[in-house]
Amino acid sequence: MNAPARPPPVHAPINQFPVENGELVVGDLPLTRLAARVGRTPFYAYDRELLNRRVAELRAALPREVQLHYAMKANPMPALVAHMTRLVDGIDVASAGELKIALDAGADPHDISFAGPGKQDAELMQAVAAGILVNVESFREIAPLAECAAKLGLPARVAVRVNPDFELKSSGMKMGGGPKQFGVDAEEVPALLSAIGRAGLAFEGFHLFAGSQNLKAEAIVEAQRKSFALALRLAEHAPAPVRFLNLGGGFGIPYFPGEQRLDLTPIGDNLAALVDEAKPKLPQACVVIELGRYLVGEAGLYVCRVIDKKISRGHTYLVTDGGLHHHLSASGNFGQVIRKNYPVAIGNRMSDAAGEPSSVVGPLCTPLDLLAEKMALPHAEPGDLVVIFQSGAYGASASPQAFLGHPSSIEVLV
Amino acid sequence: MNAPARPPPVHAPINQFPVENGELVVGDLPLTRLAARVGRTPFYAYDRELLNRRVAELRAALPREVQLHYAMKANPMPALVAHMTRLVDGIDVASAGELKIALDAGADPHDISFAGPGKQDAELMQAVAAGILVNVESFREIAPLAECAAKLGLPARVAVRVNPDFELKSSGMKMGGGPKQFGVDAEEVPALLSAIGRAGLAFEGFHLFAGSQNLKAEAIVEAQRKSFALALRLAEHAPAPVRFLNLGGGFGIPYFPGEQRLDLTPIGDNLAALVDEAKPKLPQACVVIELGRYLVGEAGLYVCRVIDKKISRGHTYLVTDGGLHHHLSASGNFGQVIRKNYPVAIGNRMSDAAGEPSSVVGPLCTPLDLLAEKMALPHAEPGDLVVIFQSGAYGASASPQAFLGHPSSIEVLV
Repeated sequence: MNAPARPPPVHAPINQFPVENGELVVGDLPLTRLAARVGRTPFYAYDRELLNRRVAELRAALPREVQLHYAMKANPMPALVAHMTRLVDGIDVASAGELKIALDAGADPHDISFAGPGKQDAELMQAVAAGILVNVESFREIAPLAECAAKLGLPARVAVRVNPDFELKSSGMKMGGGPKQFGVDAEEVPALLSAIGRAGLAFEGFHLFAGSQNLKAEAIVEAQRKSFALALRLAEHAPAPVRFLNLGGGFGIPYFPGEQRLDLTPIGDNLAALVDEAKPKLPQACVVIELGRYLVGEAGLYVCRVIDKKISRGHTYLVTDGGLHHHLSASGNFGQVIRKNYPVAIGNRMSDAAGEPSSVVGPLCTPLDLLAEKMALPHAEPGDLVVIFQSGAYGASASPQAFLGHPSSIEVLV
Repeated sequence: MNAPARPPPVHAPINQFPVENGELVVGDLPLTRLAARVGRTPFYAYDRELLNRRVAELRAALPREVQLHYAMKANPMPALVAHMTRLVDGIDVASAGELKIALDAGADPHDISFAGPGKQDAELMQAVAAGILVNVESFREIAPLAECAAKLGLPARVAVRVNPDFELKSSGMKMGGGPKQFGVDAEEVPALLSAIGRAGLAFEGFHLFAGSQNLKAEAIVEAQRKSFALALRLAEHAPAPVRFLNLGGGFGIPYFPGEQRLDLTPIGDNLAALVDEAKPKLPQACVVIELGRYLVGEAGLYVCRVIDKKISRGHTYLVTDGGLHHHLSASGNFGQVIRKNYPVAIGNRMSDAAGEPSSVVGPLCTPLDLLAEKMALPHAEPGDLVVIFQSGAYGASASPQAFLGHPSSIEVLV
């Protein structure tokens, strides 16, 4: 006999949702009851208790002095943003549309920051009028900000978003280092700071964001150390004391087979050292970590219903009412190069053994509409509920909801 | 000296929009005037005259007897669907949502067909009530269709969507052959036809769709020949005469460097031969070609405005108010494996020579938000209008418009 083949990589254990009587429990409700309460499928459900728990875990792992911001681009559902506003120390917005949601949610304008390339003059006016912090990403933003401040008789609160001279290694998406549309190249920042001073903008700090979706603690630690050292060097040119030092985020969550959860311990230890170092060198500065996906991604799931089961030339297809129009990322069409499966389950058959490999597809007339490919799932039938885990971030809002004219997904916070 | 390097592949000539005084002309309006008329950027513009011309070209190239259907999934803008309804012989819809638009547009229910896996019972009821043709894709659909027909006292008009036993070679997306969620495997179709007969559904024909976005005429010719032959074999089992023989489409348009326009001549010649062959063998059958992208793709463009120009470490970025939230496909995140540039121009500087390579990016905080990478574009400044050609299909409706909370794109038919 041959030696046994090396087992294929598997998904990290998904155990944040309890199972009772063979059903997933979300927000204390068995999934079939939740589906009945929502009234139709497909829907996204986000679990308040898991959001609370994730923030509590972070608070325990990171030094007390570190402020935690929520980057609401990950999930802008208004009720969820309102919940997060009460849990975290600030909200990062990426547009005037997100700013409205954050303000409606009750976020303190002092603790809202606004980042993004290509900010429009009207957006800058809204930001100054709201009293939020604008992360300046271009020399071009200085003149309109000064004009807004003069027109409104208000300070234009700014931080400088730096395009660092290094990148976040092993990152899902690199957002710093080399030429980039984000931020201002580190070597240009002294000139930008001096222009900010001349224009009379209210300088408050730096924003350094090297990358996202990283599962290697040592890479994050290294990026944070380098970001901190760069900020110290740049602070010498600042027209006012540094109050906010936003070291970005980049904390990843496991999506695909073979990926493991991030270890927070070395990150917390490193941040404790950086906070200690900051105390004498930047005495007024507060260190901020800005997280989107890491705060909300694992608290959410996408639920759709099996409409048809088709066996085509020996292969089983579970055809559902959900698809890429609701969950582009799970279909593999949002930044992935090679398509891999998200963790998927039959939410009302959690205790059943896996049967033949099945593919989960949606109702769209395109082969791209694939939610799980040849996965070992329990035997399922029309009416059963397919669950895609790790769906709390970059799901509903990052999907082409209007594609092919099917109903939009519903979102509930439970 | 070394031999000159082989020149890199270039885009097929994009000459469907005239240029006057250095400006692109769309629907008889210079682009800057059109932008002023629309009132804000970004927007999609679709040119009526180009839609007319494309249909006329097809009518000239294909035999008179062939019916031309518009697959509105390519572009469901209501005004455009209304325009297409007057030009073509039928509309193919992919959901009840699309059906509503087609009916509102004035399409004759007799000439509307409905395809898609996972049709829901409520959608089947709507289809029977509307009197449209349902492309049956699963044994499961027979019972609810019979029930709808009985409840409403109306015939359930059906065709059978066949998953062929071959695939369309060189196709952008394979939609037939091997195991598939689309249609019923050819070898199962005789049993399906007999079930349709037993259930008393009103059988009207076959739908065979092997793939899409194909630029090789010989591959399309081969697929049409094989589809026709398969339909002839299957027709022997049909419970009623074949009235519609929908051979699908798959006609591609050139998007990327190196791609050339499809040659219609061999396709027309082949269809003429098939029509002649059909006359004695399927005397009541009308041959239908169903096209989406090919009818509307080249008639549309996406227009966004340069908000900022950034030079980062020697590389030029044109930061625009448009991005992947409006035009996912141009960003390379919709089915592409390797990102390539769509044809892009500065619409108000059409007569300027190309300058340094520039990248066109959007306002989103993600490196995925890339509309053109290192393209030779004329020197551009904030205020200039970036144009993405070949954007009439799978643009606005196939994009995550809500992502990051920026305004949605506008669509105009000019």
